[in-house]
Amino acid sequence: MTTTTTPGTTALTNIASLVTNDPSLGDGTPIGLIQDAAVVIDGDRVVWVGESSKAPATDNAVDAGGRAVIPGFVDSHSHLVFAGDRTQEFNARMSGRAYSAGGIRTTVAATRAATDAELSANVARYLAEALRQGTTTQETKSGYGLTVDDEARALRIAREHTDEVTYLGAHIVPPDHADDPAAYVALVTGEMLDACAPYARWVDVFCEKGAFDGDQARAILTAGAAKGLHPRVHANQLSYGPGVQLAVELDAASADHCTHLTDADVDALAHGATVATLLPGAEFSTRAAWPDARRLLDAGATVALSTDCNPGSSFTSSMPFCIALAVRDMGMTPDEAVWSATAGGAAALRRQDIGRLTPGARADLALLDAPSHVHLAYRPGVPLVTAVWRAGERVH
Amino acid sequence: MTTTTTPGTTALTNIASLVTNDPSLGDGTPIGLIQDAAVVIDGDRVVWVGESSKAPATDNAVDAGGRAVIPGFVDSHSHLVFAGDRTQEFNARMSGRAYSAGGIRTTVAATRAATDAELSANVARYLAEALRQGTTTQETKSGYGLTVDDEARALRIAREHTDEVTYLGAHIVPPDHADDPAAYVALVTGEMLDACAPYARWVDVFCEKGAFDGDQARAILTAGAAKGLHPRVHANQLSYGPGVQLAVELDAASADHCTHLTDADVDALAHGATVATLLPGAEFSTRAAWPDARRLLDAGATVALSTDCNPGSSFTSSMPFCIALAVRDMGMTPDEAVWSATAGGAAALRRQDIGRLTPGARADLALLDAPSHVHLAYRPGVPLVTAVWRAGERVH
Ligand SMILES: [Zn+2]
Ligand SMILES: [Zn+2]
Repeated sequence: MTTTTTPGTTALTNIASLVTNDPSLGDGTPIGLIQDAAVVIDGDRVVWVGESSKAPATDNAVDAGGRAVIPGFVDSHSHLVFAGDRTQEFNARMSGRAYSAGGIRTTVAATRAATDAELSANVARYLAEALRQGTTTQETKSGYGLTVDDEARALRIAREHTDEVTYLGAHIVPPDHADDPAAYVALVTGEMLDACAPYARWVDVFCEKGAFDGDQARAILTAGAAKGLHPRVHANQLSYGPGVQLAVELDAASADHCTHLTDADVDALAHGATVATLLPGAEFSTRAAWPDARRLLDAGATVALSTDCNPGSSFTSSMPFCIALAVRDMGMTPDEAVWSATAGGAAALRRQDIGRLTPGARADLALLDAPSHVHLAYRPGVPLVTAVWRAGERVH
Repeated sequence: MTTTTTPGTTALTNIASLVTNDPSLGDGTPIGLIQDAAVVIDGDRVVWVGESSKAPATDNAVDAGGRAVIPGFVDSHSHLVFAGDRTQEFNARMSGRAYSAGGIRTTVAATRAATDAELSANVARYLAEALRQGTTTQETKSGYGLTVDDEARALRIAREHTDEVTYLGAHIVPPDHADDPAAYVALVTGEMLDACAPYARWVDVFCEKGAFDGDQARAILTAGAAKGLHPRVHANQLSYGPGVQLAVELDAASADHCTHLTDADVDALAHGATVATLLPGAEFSTRAAWPDARRLLDAGATVALSTDCNPGSSFTSSMPFCIALAVRDMGMTPDEAVWSATAGGAAALRRQDIGRLTPGARADLALLDAPSHVHLAYRPGVPLVTAVWRAGERVH
C-alpha cells in the first residue's frame, strides 16, 4: 500500500462512467451516473464532479484510463476484533462432518486469550484487506469479549483504527452467565456500558431466539442511548422476531440481517428512518435462505449491503462479492446493489459526508479495472478494484 | 507483475500447509496435505516436497510466512479470444428489463470487427488477470469467429499466449449459415478444420438443442480427431442430451458443464476416462440450477472446476470464486473443490506435469494469504492469492 498526498487540486480525468449517488447529476437515476466524467479533489474533499469537457483547471491530473470510478464502499457491519479463526468448524460444516462447534464461544475464548497487540494487528490486517477491495469506511464491533474489561479493550482497540465503533456486549449471553441471563443484561446495561461508552458511537444487540429477546434488547438499546450511543440492531436473522420493529421504534440507524420479515416488519422499515442492512455473506457461508431485497425496495425501504465480516458465519471482507450475491440472489439490480454498498452504508451510519461523490463529500473513491460499475456483478469474484483514495489520499 | 528468475535451487519454507495432490504424501488424502512444509524448486521444476525439518540444503530460500501453498490453478475451459463486452445485456437480464440480446452473435460481430492487436491484447489482459488470481495454466478456445479466416486467426492469436488451445468452430451455427446448418458442419469439418488444426491441440463442439445435435457433434469431433485434435465437448449444459455419452464414447478428455445428467450419463462418466468439468460461474451468472458435483463424485467420476470465462454467460476469471460456489452450492468439500481446480483441471487437459506439487512437476505454485487452502471457500470473494510462481519463476 502506498500513500501519496498531493498538494493543490487534483483532477481524476478520463473516467468512462462515474457513480456519484446524486440523482440530480448525470443520468438522473439514484446513482447519478455521469459518462466521460472527471472528479476534482482538493485536500480531503471532492470539490467538483461533472463531464470531463467541463472540468476546471487543476494543479494535478490522474488519468483513469477510461475506467469506472465509484464512491469508496461503506461497510457498515463487521466484527473484526477477534483472535483465532474457525477453519475446522467451517470445513466440517461444508464437508458434512460432525464437529462439536463452539460457535461464537470459540472466538470469545481465543479473543480473551489474545494480547492487545495481537487484536490490534488483526483489526489492522482486515481493514487493510478491505481497503484494497475498495472499502474506505468500515464499522466494527466488540462482542467477543463479553466481560467488562474485554469489551472495553475491544472497543479501545477498534477506536484506534476506525471512527465507526459499536458496543455489542449483548452478542450472546456468555457461558459464565448462562444460568442468569438477567444478571448479564444488568452488566451490559450497567458497569460494562460505563466502561465501553467512551470508545463507541453505537450500541447494538443480537435480538434473536437463544440470544436476547425483545424486552432485553429494548433495555440494552435504551441504556446505551442514555449514555449517548445510538442504536443499531442485529434483527430477524435466523427467525421472525421483534428486532426490526423495535429498531424502527427506537429510531435505530439500522436493522441488520432482515432475513425473516413479516409484512408488518417491511412496512415499519418502509415508513421509518431505519435502514435495512442486508448481509449476504452470512447467508452464503451458512447456506441459509437469502433476504429479499426486492421486497424491501419495492416497499420503499432504504437498503444497505454489508459484509458482516466475522470468523464464524461470514468471513468475507469483500463488498464486491456482496454486490454480486445481491444481484444474483436477492433481486437487486446492479445499480441498486452498488448504491446500497456505498450510499446505503452511509445512510446506515447516518453519515452525509461519505457514500457519494459530490462537492463537499470526503474524497473516498475506488477505481475499477472495468468501464462500468455493472462489472462488479458482471465479473463476480474478480478483484476489479485497482486504486483507492481515502480522504483525498491514494491508499491503494 | 514482476518476473524473477533465480539461479540454483530455491526452497519455499515455512509453509503452514501444502496441497501436493499426491495421496502418498502428508495426510494421505487425495490432496496429500503436508503441514509445516517446504517445496524445493530447481529451474522450472519441483525437485523436493516434504516437512520443513527434512528439507535439503538449497541455494536460496523464500519464507512463506506460515501461509498455505497450493498448485497453480488449471483453468481448463475459457473463451478469451473476443472483443467487446455484453454489459448492457447482463445489466438488463439482472434488472428484469427487456433487451433484444444478440447473445453469442453480439460477440461474434465485435470479434470479427476487431484487429489482431486488439484481440491479442484482450487475451493477454485476461490471462494476466487470471494469473494474479493463481491460474498458471489456461485453456482457451476460438468460437467467436465462425468463418475460416476468423477462426484460424483466433487460434493463431490464442496460440501466442497459451499451449492449451481449442478449436470451437462449432460454437453456434452463425447467422449467415442459419438456412443450411449442414453446410456449416461441412465447413467446420473441412476447410475451417484444415485452416485451424495447425494452431490447436483440441477440438470442441457445443452439443445442445439450438446448437449442434449428437450426429453433428460426432462428425465434428471425429473429423477433428482425424486431424490430430483430441476431443472435448460442451455437453448437457442447458438440457439433457447426447453430449456426455458421446464424449465418453469418443474418449474426450472432458465433458464440460454436465448440468443436466441422467443416471446413464453419470454412469458413463464414472466408468470412462472423460473428466466431468463443472463451470459454476455460468450457473451463477445466468441464475441457472447448479450441477450436482456430489452425485458425480459419489459415483466415482473425476470432476474438474473451471471458469468458462466469457463475456456472455460467465465473465469471471476467478478460480477461487468457482471453488467457493462449488462448496456452497454443488456439494463439494473444500478439499475436493481445490483438488478439482488444480489436479482435476490437469486431468481434463490430460496433463501429468501440472496440477500437483511433487518431484518432476512444473513449479507452478500459488501462495495464499491464509494458513489453509480451506480459506478459498471460507473467505469467499477475498483475493487471497498473494504470490504466484509459474515454471519456477515468480510471476506475481
Ligand atoms: Zn453481525
Ligand atoms: Zn464454454
